[in-house]
Amino acid sequence: MSLLVVGTVAFDDIQTPYGHAEKIVGGAATYITLAASNFVKNIGIVSVVGDDFPQDELDFLESKGVNLDGLQIKAGEKSFFWAGRYRSDMNSRDTLVTELNVLADFKPVVPESSKNPEFLMLGNLSPQVQMSVIDQIEVRPKLIVLDTMNFWMDIAMDELKAVLQKIDVLTINDEEARQLSGEYSLRKAARVIQEMGPKYLVIKKGEHGALLFHGNEIFFCPALPLEEVFDPTGAGDAFAGGFIGYLAKTRDTSFENMKRAIVYGSATASYSVEKFGTGKIREISKKDIHDRVFEFVDLMAFDANISHL
Amino acid sequence: MSLLVVGTVAFDDIQTPYGHAEKIVGGAATYITLAASNFVKNIGIVSVVGDDFPQDELDFLESKGVNLDGLQIKAGEKSFFWAGRYRSDMNSRDTLVTELNVLADFKPVVPESSKNPEFLMLGNLSPQVQMSVIDQIEVRPKLIVLDTMNFWMDIAMDELKAVLQKIDVLTINDEEARQLSGEYSLRKAARVIQEMGPKYLVIKKGEHGALLFHGNEIFFCPALPLEEVFDPTGAGDAFAGGFIGYLAKTRDTSFENMKRAIVYGSATASYSVEKFGTGKIREISKKDIHDRVFEFVDLMAFDANISHL
Repeated sequence: MSLLVVGTVAFDDIQTPYGHAEKIVGGAATYITLAASNFVKNIGIVSVVGDDFPQDELDFLESKGVNLDGLQIKAGEKSFFWAGRYRSDMNSRDTLVTELNVLADFKPVVPESSKNPEFLMLGNLSPQVQMSVIDQIEVRPKLIVLDTMNFWMDIAMDELKAVLQKIDVLTINDEEARQLSGEYSLRKAARVIQEMGPKYLVIKKGEHGALLFHGNEIFFCPALPLEEVFDPTGAGDAFAGGFIGYLAKTRDTSFENMKRAIVYGSATASYSVEKFGTGKIREISKKDIHDRVFEFVDLMAFDANISHL
Repeated sequence: MSLLVVGTVAFDDIQTPYGHAEKIVGGAATYITLAASNFVKNIGIVSVVGDDFPQDELDFLESKGVNLDGLQIKAGEKSFFWAGRYRSDMNSRDTLVTELNVLADFKPVVPESSKNPEFLMLGNLSPQVQMSVIDQIEVRPKLIVLDTMNFWMDIAMDELKAVLQKIDVLTINDEEARQLSGEYSLRKAARVIQEMGPKYLVIKKGEHGALLFHGNEIFFCPALPLEEVFDPTGAGDAFAGGFIGYLAKTRDTSFENMKRAIVYGSATASYSVEKFGTGKIREISKKDIHDRVFEFVDLMAFDANISHL
């Protein structure tokens, strides 16, 4: 198996200034696998849904090369459901409803077919679930990427710190980096967090881009200025999916290649926000992502031309 | 004259989480000229102070190549004074005191020695003062850059729009771009603002970097992640000074060179915030700025290497 993805598969209800999408398919693992499927086809998923989850959505994931052996379908139970409303600036949102449902007592089971993934992406879930998956893997993957959020820092910091010691790349936003490290300066925060385990830290800043820290090296990738952002939901997961999908495809975890992976992740995320839910990322192709990577190249290119002075 | 700078020369009282600097020298024109003096030596200034302004500070500016013919010194009056306190995140601040003093009835007078500047930088002042300076220039400068803020949009939008028709480059922050254009998307805002006059728009996003728009082209320059930010006061002016100083030195206003100017401006601003007031920017050299430009090159460099996929 090239890539194993752990995370939620769920229903979302999303309100933005552009409209209201009721009970559409979402969840971190959905966004991550759809994004990664542009790069690799041998993707496993470990997650759980209720029997209310539409079969055609599962068929669609399978058609994208996603192996569902690790997806538990709980008879008589309901899938995880989240409802939220974005404010007019799109940068903040209010959660209206969170129904854990099948997620409340989720015990991940990694199937035989997925016990030796070359790359492992641990989407945002409790650190205990993330650790349980790592424990079930037989051979240490080439790279383990973990996404988490402030919620787990608030209620399960010890468990989070335990799992951080097992991973290679941590993806969080700037406020979470500050909370986790106790440092306001992101440069100092990155140093503290790298000492906690992950040798690479990706700080996601949404419309302000993403930073990659590794030792004393830093790489910055902007977000592409877009005509319109319809729905930011899942952008971080689309980013993570493009990031690890590119790495799984190229099988190169050098810093230079990880910089490229950040750009591919950013390009993927820039599409994700252009329609509600997974509407856009389920229809894009590898060529679309390439085209957008070239827009990033233009956006960032300059020749320092020091000889001028 | 290579560069003429219009803006405040003033006293600031600044409180940040790192300390309190009482009545230190500040003002937009001070930051701009100090930053630009690393690139060109033939700089004029148009401004006003009271007779409370220290002579050794004026001598210092002259030692940096700044011609003070256009600096009015009002006997018996006090210099402009601003006091503010930054909140713990350094991204927001409260104004505690604003004493206009000599600025209240400032009538800029461009001296003979400054009436033909090759480059003109209009620092943040009332649009009427900015327009008066343009009206006194004899030959249209190669490039006119204007900085402004939301305050003038609130109380003098018509006057601001009149002066926008006369300039080439506008520098404002993201919220101001949204206010001026009525568009939330910065890409749309840039289009609307370019139709108001300036062919180039620089959107300053502080710790989130800067965007340069021109026609359909966009360039993004990140802010350098710093170990510590002591005082953000004047960072935007240091940026503007490095930007126009680089352009005045190279005398090349192509889009490619303007991208470089954005990086030089960002490098200059990254120093400015490392000490209180003008403390850092008055001590750096051209070599220091070059060194930091190389850090920006590293921060932004990646090889898309599309052939991988």
